[in-house]
Amino acid sequence: MRITVKLLSILLVFLSSPIWCRGATQGVANSVREYRRAHEHRILQEFVRLLSLPNVASERENIRRNAALIADMMRSRGLSPRLLETAAQVAPPAVYGEWRVPGATRTLVFYAHYDGQPADTRQWSGQTPWQPLLRSGTLESGGKILPLPGRDEPINPEWRLYARSAADDKGGVVAILSAFDALIATGTKLTSNIKFFFEGEEEAGSPHLADVVSRHKELLQSDAWIICDGPVHQSGRKQVVFGVRGDTNVDVTVYGALRPLHSGHYGNWAPNPAMLLARLLASMKDEAGRVTVPGWYDDAEPLGEIERRAIMEAPRYDEELRAQLGIGRAEGGGQSLLELINLPSLNINGINSADVGAQSRNVIPTTATAALDLRLVKGNDYRRQVERLVSHIRRQGFHVVDRDPTDAERRQHPLIAKVTHRPGGYNAARTPMDLPVSLAVVETVQSVSAQPVVRLPTLGGSLPLSIIGENLGGVPTITVPLANYDNNQHAENENLRIQNLWDGIEIVAAIMAMKPRQTPANPSGKDAAHGRS
Amino acid sequence: MRITVKLLSILLVFLSSPIWCRGATQGVANSVREYRRAHEHRILQEFVRLLSLPNVASERENIRRNAALIADMMRSRGLSPRLLETAAQVAPPAVYGEWRVPGATRTLVFYAHYDGQPADTRQWSGQTPWQPLLRSGTLESGGKILPLPGRDEPINPEWRLYARSAADDKGGVVAILSAFDALIATGTKLTSNIKFFFEGEEEAGSPHLADVVSRHKELLQSDAWIICDGPVHQSGRKQVVFGVRGDTNVDVTVYGALRPLHSGHYGNWAPNPAMLLARLLASMKDEAGRVTVPGWYDDAEPLGEIERRAIMEAPRYDEELRAQLGIGRAEGGGQSLLELINLPSLNINGINSADVGAQSRNVIPTTATAALDLRLVKGNDYRRQVERLVSHIRRQGFHVVDRDPTDAERRQHPLIAKVTHRPGGYNAARTPMDLPVSLAVVETVQSVSAQPVVRLPTLGGSLPLSIIGENLGGVPTITVPLANYDNNQHAENENLRIQNLWDGIEIVAAIMAMKPRQTPANPSGKDAAHGRS
Repeated sequence: MRITVKLLSILLVFLSSPIWCRGATQGVANSVREYRRAHEHRILQEFVRLLSLPNVASERENIRRNAALIADMMRSRGLSPRLLETAAQVAPPAVYGEWRVPGATRTLVFYAHYDGQPADTRQWSGQTPWQPLLRSGTLESGGKILPLPGRDEPINPEWRLYARSAADDKGGVVAILSAFDALIATGTKLTSNIKFFFEGEEEAGSPHLADVVSRHKELLQSDAWIICDGPVHQSGRKQVVFGVRGDTNVDVTVYGALRPLHSGHYGNWAPNPAMLLARLLASMKDEAGRVTVPGWYDDAEPLGEIERRAIMEAPRYDEELRAQLGIGRAEGGGQSLLELINLPSLNINGINSADVGAQSRNVIPTTATAALDLRLVKGNDYRRQVERLVSHIRRQGFHVVDRDPTDAERRQHPLIAKVTHRPGGYNAARTPMDLPVSLAVVETVQSVSAQPVVRLPTLGGSLPLSIIGENLGGVPTITVPLANYDNNQHAENENLRIQNLWDGIEIVAAIMAMKPRQTPANPSGKDAAHGRS
Repeated sequence: MRITVKLLSILLVFLSSPIWCRGATQGVANSVREYRRAHEHRILQEFVRLLSLPNVASERENIRRNAALIADMMRSRGLSPRLLETAAQVAPPAVYGEWRVPGATRTLVFYAHYDGQPADTRQWSGQTPWQPLLRSGTLESGGKILPLPGRDEPINPEWRLYARSAADDKGGVVAILSAFDALIATGTKLTSNIKFFFEGEEEAGSPHLADVVSRHKELLQSDAWIICDGPVHQSGRKQVVFGVRGDTNVDVTVYGALRPLHSGHYGNWAPNPAMLLARLLASMKDEAGRVTVPGWYDDAEPLGEIERRAIMEAPRYDEELRAQLGIGRAEGGGQSLLELINLPSLNINGINSADVGAQSRNVIPTTATAALDLRLVKGNDYRRQVERLVSHIRRQGFHVVDRDPTDAERRQHPLIAKVTHRPGGYNAARTPMDLPVSLAVVETVQSVSAQPVVRLPTLGGSLPLSIIGENLGGVPTITVPLANYDNNQHAENENLRIQNLWDGIEIVAAIMAMKPRQTPANPSGKDAAHGRS
């Protein structure tokens, strides 16, 4: 064990030395940049058109309009897109396409998702979520609303495009297709087959991805998946990420009386569900933010030597981030953000009981609800983690049901919690950082970056990469995030910084064009990752 | 002290004996009933018209339309209404009118309020809150929607009229004016001057009532105020109530990061305000529902012998109520509802942080808010009670502010709570149960009731009676509730049972017509309560 670690360390030092930073991709990057500069307006126009379609996965008609548009975009590029459907077409289809390269020694799948999180229009500033709006800078810094620039007007790369999914993750779709355009237009010789896979229900927890992927095992055969999603490092440095946290959602509702009661006539006699919920939630975490649900951290696989070192080498950014976000004290008792995202989390997405503000009334509410999300790390199983949560709720004295309680149950049980595990959910994934394809991607991204690339064992966010790995013979998945970190992902006023889109196009193109490695680590000339499939 | 109690006990037994239940009011009740039966359709029509006006106190234009309509209703009865305004007419006016009786030996003010709680239209069934809807029974029992009955169609007294303020408290306004109609129409000889006082911002906490009342001390001079508001006893028995709890509202907001964060990238590092709020709220009450804010119960004046006995004599209804409301276990460690409403309470009216349900997103919210209401009993001061709450929040480690924190404050203080004390609020009031006017009202209500009248030292709900007492020389206030107890007061689907309106008219008319008492307790023939004013 120790010897292996030592060997790997030597290898890593060797591989990360300048000898591997070849000039080939730099040439590709330059021609891609030229191409992009000449086509910025067209790229932006296509992006705006895609962002104009509402894309919540559960809205069947809308989400299919997105899939149809993306298929059109691919068709216009000479690709022959296919909608990969589930049985009975219940779920949003994945949009698939491929570009076969004669003599290719490798097949890469480029992944992005075209669905987005729901959006509360009332909370957006100056626009609705699906009316893309260009601003001269961030809202917070007073960015002004700009008209879309005409063909002869320059585009400032510090501008931001505001819309749901600008960053998460239609920006990924557009970067991938624009990178492909650039390579074809500049006549770049490719040595990898390119496959495109655009998912349509990632934000809903990918409940049908396993079905779709396992139905199309043959079609999706590949040597690696390149995942274009998530933000670059907070410092602005590019990053390559080798894992993601798993994710699943649980809703908890607790009950008071059958009807809302006057808080004077019944207050301090009738139980208040908002207070019951507060007590229940408070029992789940201690003051330092550590989850107190028994067993919560038991299955988490500790990080290996390489992962720990990568975290140590990543820029320290916590203090800067605290200041920017107005956070007086972070959770986690002094551990850094990068350390903490390697632990499973329990987060409250929202709580509600009756009303606050102008609509609040002097009542005792009938119910109180919390929406929770559970993030998981390598070693956790999401179903087991939910079971732990349910056991904890039972231990707090609650009778747990999975639908509204009957009148008889209400009379019988002083404390009742409806706990529902939302459809979807998956485990964490982590690709070894020392696979040849891992090293090649880092090297390629580095070759088009001025600053050192940040390598991370895991992203704090989640992607259904475990589903891809589990259903496709353990194919490695490597995440190359494109968005600015302050993109308001999942929230109101989501945005993408234009320069991040431009950079993203260059990075994706460089990876599409990366040469097979002739390195000591891979003497056969064939990517070792292939052996995993 | 013991002697006084003993004397009062003897007196009470004597006064509550049948000798005091005279036939006079029974005669009035009969003629009022005849009148009501002949005019049911007109009464209902007037009630529906009044209920059709939105009446949230903060909506200036709407609330004044209510005042104008009530003034019209009074004018058509030969009264000369006046709008009692605050300086600069900032608040909803009180609508005042009077009926002077030559040779009257007493002046009674009849109080009701015409404003109502805010209403969330989405939560109402089959109607908007200000489109009155007649149903054949309660919604819960499957009551069918009925057209308003034509002039020749009978009105079933078990029908319910659904609308905001049907029960709380436009029903009171209509009962008072209809009772007056009946007495005038039947030529009943009155011995009291009648004054009408309809408040327009009771549900907003009566922030200007002290101003209005103190500006019109002379006009409002009287021997007692009869307050027509609140529900009858849950058993259906009429009740006379001698006090009300005080009330005030506090809003608490706690803070996370300046912008909503992706729960994966930042979850278990960025503090979650929903969890901070849950912990804070949970610190305020123990498992049995006892408030744990230090000093909370310190000032509460214990009940006297008469009050304790009245509670003991009231019907026990807790078990029945628990079953009806689907409550497995009431708060208060075994004390009855009637005992508990004699303690100060702390109730959560609502909590909110980001969204739950279909709108929930995988975010860490930026803020979490709770709306609280504090009920007070005799001895409490509402400002002192709020101070105790604020001190408690500070002791939990929060930096307390009264507006949104600055960025510098956010960075400096790990825990920040914005605590705002809403305008309005007042103390509890309790009129002695053994004043001659108290005894006379009980006797009068008893004379028109088949079942024994319930006498209570206090209502659980609140009315600004302390403001009236404090500004008008301690004039006694006696509450005679009219509404059915299951009226969904303050909530969606508020309703009034028609029979409760009919009964209310008879009760109010009987009190308006009650004779000066010639009793051993009041040998001078003049109401002793007068001595208080």
